[in-house]
Amino acid sequence: MLILVDQDGVLADFHAGFERAWRAAGHAIPAIPLERRKSFSLRDDYPAEWRAAVVETFTREGFFRDLPPIPGAAHALREMLAQGHEVAICTSPLLEYQHCVSEKYAWIERHLGADFIPRVVLTRDKTLVHGDVLIDDKPVIDGLRTPDWRHILYDQPYNRTVAGPRLTWADWREKLGLG
Amino acid sequence: MLILVDQDGVLADFHAGFERAWRAAGHAIPAIPLERRKSFSLRDDYPAEWRAAVVETFTREGFFRDLPPIPGAAHALREMLAQGHEVAICTSPLLEYQHCVSEKYAWIERHLGADFIPRVVLTRDKTLVHGDVLIDDKPVIDGLRTPDWRHILYDQPYNRTVAGPRLTWADWREKLGLG
Repeated sequence: MLILVDQDGVLADFHAGFERAWRAAGHAIPAIPLERRKSFSLRDDYPAEWRAAVVETFTREGFFRDLPPIPGAAHALREMLAQGHEVAICTSPLLEYQHCVSEKYAWIERHLGADFIPRVVLTRDKTLVHGDVLIDDKPVIDGLRTPDWRHILYDQPYNRTVAGPRLTWADWREKLGLG
Repeated sequence: MLILVDQDGVLADFHAGFERAWRAAGHAIPAIPLERRKSFSLRDDYPAEWRAAVVETFTREGFFRDLPPIPGAAHALREMLAQGHEVAICTSPLLEYQHCVSEKYAWIERHLGADFIPRVVLTRDKTLVHGDVLIDDKPVIDGLRTPDWRHILYDQPYNRTVAGPRLTWADWREKLGLG
C-alpha cells in the first residue's frame, strides 16, 4: 500500500502548539479548548474580531517548527515501512508560506528523521496525489480530481460531525486492516 | 488537460543563476558554459574536487530566490490557463531544503504571481502526481509508480542525448497540440 499521511493534526499537534503560542502572547481571551473546537479551520472557531490575532499566531516564525509531535505517530510510520508499505507525508502548506514550508521540513527531519525528507509531498490539492489511503484530520478533502485514495479521518474533536472510517495512532493497525 | 510544469530549468533559469553565483564567488575555474553541460545534475559536470563548491553555491541563501526567469514561461502558463487547462508547478526541492523550499515559493509569487502559489506541488517523486503531461528538463524521471503523465522534455543542451518529444516556450503550442 501507498499510505499518504497528513502532517498537522495527524503527526504534529497543531492545536496544542496553537494553545501554547496563544497563551504566551497573553491575549485577553483564552484559546478554545480542543474538545470545544467545531471547525477544522482554527480561525473559523474564533469570533471575527480575533481572527487576525489567530492568523498572526500561526504564521509567526517558529510556529510550525516548534509544534509538539502527536504521540505514537513516528512509531506508526516506522512500522508501516517495516511492513513493506510506502509512506508519503502529504501536507498542505499555508498560503502564507514564508515560514510554514521550510519549518514543515525541519519538523519532519527532527521528529521523523532525515530519511523522511524525500517522502514529503507539499500540495494544496491532495486529489492530485496518488495513494491507496490518505490519513487526514480534514473532514472533506476536495480538489481538481476524484482521488484514487480512500480518505480515513484521523480522529479529532473538530471532525466528529463527519461520518466515515477514522483512526488514531492507538488503533491504526486494525483500522487499516494491517493487524 | 492537467499540465504539470517543472520549475528549475523550465521556468527558472537554474544554469544562468549558477553561472552568475559562481562568477561572483571568484572561483579559480570558470563555470561550465550551458552548451558544454552534459549532465542534468550540475555537480556531475564538474571535477570531483569542485563538487563541494558547486553544492555550496546552489544551497546558499538567496540562490533559488534570485534565479532569472526563462523568457516566455510565465506567458505560456497564463495562456494554458486562458485556454481552460489546469496547470500545476511540480518541482523537486533539494534535500538541502533550508533555503530552497521557501525560496521556490517566493520565486513563483514574484515571477508568476500569488495566484500560482496554490498550484505548487513539491515532491521528490513526481510519479506520485497525477497529470496528463509533465514538462520537465530532467532526462529520465522515475519513482514508485508508473506515471500517468506523458513526459515532454523541456529542451536543454544537457538532455539532448535522450530521445522523445521536447519543447521550448517558443513552440509549446504545436508540440502540445494546443495550436
